[in-house]
Amino acid sequence: MNIQHKRSSLVPETVTCGPLPGSRKVYHHPQSHPELSVPFREIALDPASGEPPVRVYDASGPYSEENFKPDLAKGLPRTRAVWLEKRAGHESYAGRAVKPEDNGSVSADRLVPPCPANAAPLRGRTGALVTQYEFAKAGIITEEMIYAAARENLGREQAVEGAAARLKDGESFGASIPEFVTPEFVRDEIARGRAIIPANINHPELEPMVIGRNFLVKVNANIGNSAVTSSVAEEVEKLVWAIRWGADTVMDLSTGRNIHNIRDWIMRNAPVPIGTVPIYQALEKVDGDPIKLTWEIFRDTLIEQAEQGVDYFTIHAGVRLAHVPLTAKRTTGIVSRGGSIMARWCLAHHKESFLYEHFDEICDIMRAYDVSFSLGDGLRPGSIADANDAAQFAELETLGELTKIAWAKGCQVMIEGPGHVPIHKIKINMEKQLKECDEAPFYTLGPLTTDIAPGYDHITSGIGAAMIGWFGCAMLCYVTPKEHLGLPDRDDVKVGVITYRIAAHAGDLAKGHPAAQIRDDAVSRARFDFRWQDQFNLGLDPETAAHFHDETLPKDAHKVAHFCSMCGPQFCSMKITQDLRVEAAAMAEEEAKREQGMAEKSAEFLEKGGKLYV
Amino acid sequence: MNIQHKRSSLVPETVTCGPLPGSRKVYHHPQSHPELSVPFREIALDPASGEPPVRVYDASGPYSEENFKPDLAKGLPRTRAVWLEKRAGHESYAGRAVKPEDNGSVSADRLVPPCPANAAPLRGRTGALVTQYEFAKAGIITEEMIYAAARENLGREQAVEGAAARLKDGESFGASIPEFVTPEFVRDEIARGRAIIPANINHPELEPMVIGRNFLVKVNANIGNSAVTSSVAEEVEKLVWAIRWGADTVMDLSTGRNIHNIRDWIMRNAPVPIGTVPIYQALEKVDGDPIKLTWEIFRDTLIEQAEQGVDYFTIHAGVRLAHVPLTAKRTTGIVSRGGSIMARWCLAHHKESFLYEHFDEICDIMRAYDVSFSLGDGLRPGSIADANDAAQFAELETLGELTKIAWAKGCQVMIEGPGHVPIHKIKINMEKQLKECDEAPFYTLGPLTTDIAPGYDHITSGIGAAMIGWFGCAMLCYVTPKEHLGLPDRDDVKVGVITYRIAAHAGDLAKGHPAAQIRDDAVSRARFDFRWQDQFNLGLDPETAAHFHDETLPKDAHKVAHFCSMCGPQFCSMKITQDLRVEAAAMAEEEAKREQGMAEKSAEFLEKGGKLYV
Repeated sequence: MNIQHKRSSLVPETVTCGPLPGSRKVYHHPQSHPELSVPFREIALDPASGEPPVRVYDASGPYSEENFKPDLAKGLPRTRAVWLEKRAGHESYAGRAVKPEDNGSVSADRLVPPCPANAAPLRGRTGALVTQYEFAKAGIITEEMIYAAARENLGREQAVEGAAARLKDGESFGASIPEFVTPEFVRDEIARGRAIIPANINHPELEPMVIGRNFLVKVNANIGNSAVTSSVAEEVEKLVWAIRWGADTVMDLSTGRNIHNIRDWIMRNAPVPIGTVPIYQALEKVDGDPIKLTWEIFRDTLIEQAEQGVDYFTIHAGVRLAHVPLTAKRTTGIVSRGGSIMARWCLAHHKESFLYEHFDEICDIMRAYDVSFSLGDGLRPGSIADANDAAQFAELETLGELTKIAWAKGCQVMIEGPGHVPIHKIKINMEKQLKECDEAPFYTLGPLTTDIAPGYDHITSGIGAAMIGWFGCAMLCYVTPKEHLGLPDRDDVKVGVITYRIAAHAGDLAKGHPAAQIRDDAVSRARFDFRWQDQFNLGLDPETAAHFHDETLPKDAHKVAHFCSMCGPQFCSMKITQDLRVEAAAMAEEEAKREQGMAEKSAEFLEKGGKLYV
Repeated sequence: MNIQHKRSSLVPETVTCGPLPGSRKVYHHPQSHPELSVPFREIALDPASGEPPVRVYDASGPYSEENFKPDLAKGLPRTRAVWLEKRAGHESYAGRAVKPEDNGSVSADRLVPPCPANAAPLRGRTGALVTQYEFAKAGIITEEMIYAAARENLGREQAVEGAAARLKDGESFGASIPEFVTPEFVRDEIARGRAIIPANINHPELEPMVIGRNFLVKVNANIGNSAVTSSVAEEVEKLVWAIRWGADTVMDLSTGRNIHNIRDWIMRNAPVPIGTVPIYQALEKVDGDPIKLTWEIFRDTLIEQAEQGVDYFTIHAGVRLAHVPLTAKRTTGIVSRGGSIMARWCLAHHKESFLYEHFDEICDIMRAYDVSFSLGDGLRPGSIADANDAAQFAELETLGELTKIAWAKGCQVMIEGPGHVPIHKIKINMEKQLKECDEAPFYTLGPLTTDIAPGYDHITSGIGAAMIGWFGCAMLCYVTPKEHLGLPDRDDVKVGVITYRIAAHAGDLAKGHPAAQIRDDAVSRARFDFRWQDQFNLGLDPETAAHFHDETLPKDAHKVAHFCSMCGPQFCSMKITQDLRVEAAAMAEEEAKREQGMAEKSAEFLEKGGKLYV
């Protein structure tokens, strides 16, 4: 890897690798398709406990293997290439020539070289099966579907014990979560438009995953530079860092120089779906002036990014000319960048949005590479005051209309959602989205449940995210503590991702997802048994948990201590409970015997013809 | 102040004082009772904006005044003493002599001196009016009620504009939130048992506040040392620090040496209600062995702490002998310290809990000082696995029974709740509590909505706290990031309090509390107008917000910049929106004119006898 960059002192030499403490990467080979290697993380527990290792979903890619040596210039293994080669629906072609403006017309001495791992792009043929949606509609189960199903089951070959009871104990608001996820179930969900597998045919490095209300709730992390600050060459590490802590997909929102070539490096080294907002790059090509945007420039940008392998595009085609006046009296107007760009264009030209007008053609392009739609909510509320207003819902209705067009064109679709919403107005967002968009996966930013805590918006929004995940949202776009204030650094990205993993998991638990509670129970048992190291390792952030513990009780001996610093050895409720558990069990047994004895006596009494008082 | 302590290097010389950035302390004098001085914080905004200052609830006491010079030995002003002097229901008496075991039998050279501000205790007379509940039942409005009502209204003398519409727009699940809080409303809520004003007659330094489902959601912070670590002399600063960030009440959970005398210092310097768990100190007096506990020792401890002025006691009288076996098969047994102590005692003696057996006498003691009950949930679930189980609900039913006894004795009562609860099982907790305890205020710890994130339990629980606050919980006990791992430090306390202020406010917003959204709207307008400093100052943590902003854009010029580091000057959606707002407004006006023109034409047409096509 040879990336030139001005701020070279900030450029990491490589990316973060190696397993999390106590964990190892394992690959599962489904019985029906042993040629597939589906990644999981296994957390080993104290052997003395007799507890089996706990297997968890793992989107971190090969980077978290024990001895993985990344070679960013070579890129990740092209696992999907074998699957794609067997399919007849696409062809290789020369591809679009890279233009200077693709990289922000950066000067030659500052140009980041393209990633050497680049190959000639593939493009789907008209009329052939290309997208996962088309395969699903044709009744064909793809490797991607099998792979995603195995991930959802955490590599189990059958339903987890008690799955039906777990589901019954949950509340999923009309979702159809199965006891066990079969590849056929994934196919059916995709065919119904209720799920997507974002998987550009030019992204062979992808470890496929499924997004839909009947699957585990997913988390997206945004990365990117910006016009004011940030270094370009750190982008791959940003990706690796975000997925290390649990991001399922990553959106690259870069807008600076070198973005085309940097995107190459990201795509070739990304095991997760990558999303972008093509209008950002299109705007750069017209010097940042929304009024100068044209359909031709946008179209060319779509093809540029689709050839690189971007898995989903945010397309703000729901921002129509007629919607813009609806935002005039808002407290915070239009807060979506894409939304404001398109609104500016529509008003300046007094014309309908070119995204809306050319939606058919956009579909044709995206279908040809299987880029999934993420229909953008350009009119999402940017404040509690603007939540659920006419502008927001008018756009959502348009998104519903566009969803059906995209499906008819063979595309996969998800829908973006707000934003800022007080908690009592969250459910109506979910319900309206399900209705208008025929259950296409919902993908929301937060929502933030109050505006009064700048610096803590991962928390204001984590509350809303947990709730909407429970209600049926398929993917949650993270918010970091820097939201509204500045650019997130490594720590912010980590905190943002972990907060959203909490929200997603809280939603899964509440829906009664059959296997969700296994990890909670393992943590709880470790806690009750004073297996401190197990408690740390089972958590979302083992290092922080261990560090917090050691701040108060630094000695190693305390890691096996049957108490903690909160109460000390005399006061520990768990210790007392353990002491009395034996006694209590004995007491319960005694009680049971007594009751049984009474029941027997009653039966005896009745048998002898006696009568019982009621 | 002259506190002796071994780790003197850690002891702060004084406590944190002064206003938050951009804020000043103001005192409101209700028109009907101008002699009262009710504290608020006013956040001044950029004069150029034309925006009035924003007034917010303020529990931080005189410490946040501009030039307050704390004298911990003198204690805070005894504002309530004047009110109490006018009442005939109590008498001054010598009080109980302090015993060596009250301070953990600490050696003389390590003994913290008692606070010089101590006065002879007051005690209510039998048959007279003493508690706020008794006054309320007698139809008497106390100064405490007037004061608390003024706080709830943020010093307004009438309902905020649009109050009825706000309430209608909210969802409060059957609460009876008024458009404007009158002292009579507070009295009525207390008389119905639906609210309490924790206000020991021996705590004249208190700034009274009200806790109930029809008032703003409150937040409690726990402070305290522990047997293993921590310094004693920092306790007052811990209190001041917690209320600085928004804690409405503080529980002192100390268990070490010197706790009696340290409690003196805390009480004399506490503007907020202080809660304790007397069983902790009682246990210390019997060398930490639960089995040695007796009613007499517990009774003596109640009086000891009541004389000092503690405002509410957690009493685990719901942990009955018969409930203990119900916990035998739990994943995490009994996790409440008080609960496990009482369970151990019951089982060891095979006797009913002495707290339950002597509940009448406990009521008599607490009534005599107006110590409010916080009926402890000793059997709360300590894991997702144990949520809403038989043990938890059996105890809650007992707490309902005890609530009625306490009311009959003239006491104020609130009820403690869980704990660890998945989000779909939170609402049933609230509903069952309202039903069993006749709407007595609910006071919950979290609940934590998943167990998989040690190190982030302020967030796992903040999610549950926001929800249960919305559902009707009156006060939320904070959880810090160190929960389950170690003792919180200053930063943890601050993060915990702010997380819970977010949760409480999100609940208030969702219930449609008439004035709640004023602050959100002010932040949103500041954000949209690029008034950076206003945005920081209006937030819960101005310093962190400013610091986050400055990390990316440190120059002062950027504080007035019409863009931020996230998107840069070219890309700012808010800037674009401002540009297009004028255009959009014009377009809307044009549209309105066009519609009006059509309507006029239609009317004209109809007038002339024409018919309209449907």
